[in-house]
Amino acid sequence: MTLLTAGILIIGDEILSGRTQDTNANFIAKNLTSSGIKLEEIKVIQDKKNIIIDSVKLFSKKYTYVFTTGGIGPTHDDITSESIAEAFNKKYGINKEAFNILEKYYPEGEFNKSRQRMTKMPTDAQLIYNPMTAAPGFILKNVHVLPGVPKIMEVMFIDVLKNLKKGKPKKITTINTTLYESKIAPYLKEIQSKYEECSIGSYPYFNFLSNTGGVNIVISSWTMSSLDDVKKEIIEMIKLNSGNYSIV
Amino acid sequence: MTLLTAGILIIGDEILSGRTQDTNANFIAKNLTSSGIKLEEIKVIQDKKNIIIDSVKLFSKKYTYVFTTGGIGPTHDDITSESIAEAFNKKYGINKEAFNILEKYYPEGEFNKSRQRMTKMPTDAQLIYNPMTAAPGFILKNVHVLPGVPKIMEVMFIDVLKNLKKGKPKKITTINTTLYESKIAPYLKEIQSKYEECSIGSYPYFNFLSNTGGVNIVISSWTMSSLDDVKKEIIEMIKLNSGNYSIV
Repeated sequence: MTLLTAGILIIGDEILSGRTQDTNANFIAKNLTSSGIKLEEIKVIQDKKNIIIDSVKLFSKKYTYVFTTGGIGPTHDDITSESIAEAFNKKYGINKEAFNILEKYYPEGEFNKSRQRMTKMPTDAQLIYNPMTAAPGFILKNVHVLPGVPKIMEVMFIDVLKNLKKGKPKKITTINTTLYESKIAPYLKEIQSKYEECSIGSYPYFNFLSNTGGVNIVISSWTMSSLDDVKKEIIEMIKLNSGNYSIV
Repeated sequence: MTLLTAGILIIGDEILSGRTQDTNANFIAKNLTSSGIKLEEIKVIQDKKNIIIDSVKLFSKKYTYVFTTGGIGPTHDDITSESIAEAFNKKYGINKEAFNILEKYYPEGEFNKSRQRMTKMPTDAQLIYNPMTAAPGFILKNVHVLPGVPKIMEVMFIDVLKNLKKGKPKKITTINTTLYESKIAPYLKEIQSKYEECSIGSYPYFNFLSNTGGVNIVISSWTMSSLDDVKKEIIEMIKLNSGNYSIV
C-alpha cells in the first residue's frame, strides 16, 4: 500500500502579519492523521498570484492531496480561485451550479456582482458545498480549495474528507513521565534504534509557575501492527530510573 | 531603504500530526510586523535532515532573517543543529561557551552526555542565551535557531529581536463594519485601485449563535506616511451605504 500524503497551503497576509492565529492547519492535520493520511508540509503564503500559482503547482505534484484555505471571498483581495485556474491552465469563469446555488440563497435583488464573483472558478472544478453560507469551495485535480473562516472551513473539510481515500491510521501512544528529558535521552535513543518502523518523539513541557515539568514520549508508526513492545520497553526504562509514568 | 524580510521554519512532526497547535509563528509574526520586518513565509516541516537542510538554505537566500523553532533538545529526534551545520558546510561540535554555561547550570554529576548534546552546534555560531532553562539557541549567518517550547522561545526571541535591524513599522488601521462583505466589495476595489501603496484587506467573521457578523477592513502599508485619506474614503463609503462603523 502506498502512503497517502498531504500538504496544506494557508493563503493569507493576515496570518503572516500576526493579526490572526491560524487554526485551520491544526484542524485539518488532526483529521488527516486519524484518517491515515500523512501531512508532510504546511506553508503560509502571501496573497500574491505568482506565489499562489508556484506553490499550488509544486504541492500538487508532491502530495496525494492538497488543501488550501483562504482567499475565495467576494473582495478584490480574494485571488485564490483565479490563481489556481492559472496554475492548471484552466479557464476562469462562472460555474453554473454555483451560480444557481447562490441565486437561490440570496433574497431577490441581493445577488450582486461581488457575490457573483464567488461563483467564478476554474472550469472543470467540482464544487465543495457550503451548508453555512452557501458560497462553495471547489476541487481541481488533487487540490481542495476551502474558505478561511474556521467554522465554515471545518464543516466543508469534514465533507471533503468523506470522499478521500483513507490509509491505515497512524498508531500513536503517548507516555508521560516526570523524569527529565536528558535523563531518558540515551535510553530513548537506544530503544529507537531497535524499532526503525516507529518514531519515538520526546516533547518536554514546563510549568514555570509551579516549577514542575515532564516529558511526553510519543510513539507513532504508520506501519507497525502494534506498539506494545516499544511501549513496554519505555515503561520498563522509566521504572528502572525510578520515574513515574502514565499513559496519556 | 530596502525592505527587511523574514521567513519562519517550524520544525516538528508534532505540529504536522496535529498533536500540537503551533503558536510560535504567530508570536514571532506579531513582533516582526511591529518592528518593520515583513514576514513573507511560514513553513512547517518534518524532523528530517534533508528537508531541514534544503529549507534552511532556500530561506537563508530568500529572506533578510530566518527563524527556526524546534529540534534543539537533548534527544535523538532533535536534529536541527546538525542539519543547519550541514546546510552551511560547518563543522558540528561542542561550543565551549555553551558547555561552560550548562556545566555551571546543572548540579554536579548531572551534566550528562545527553545534556552535553545541547551544546553541540555549527562552529562559528553565536549563542542566543536562554534565561529560563540555560540551553542556548544560536545564530549562524542570518539564521536564528530557537527552541520549540513557547515560553522559552518567546523570551529568547525578544532578546534576538533587540539586535536585528528594524524597518519602518507597517502602518495598520482596522475599520469594523456590520455591512456585508459583498455589499462593500466593489467600493473597496475602487478605493484600492486609487491607493497602490497600501493594501486593503477584507476579513469577514460570523457569529453563528447570534446569527450576526461583519467585516474587519484592514488598511496597511509599509511605505505610506499616513493612512488617513484611505480611512476617510472607506468611512464615507460605509456611511453612504447606511452602515455602522467603528475603528478597532
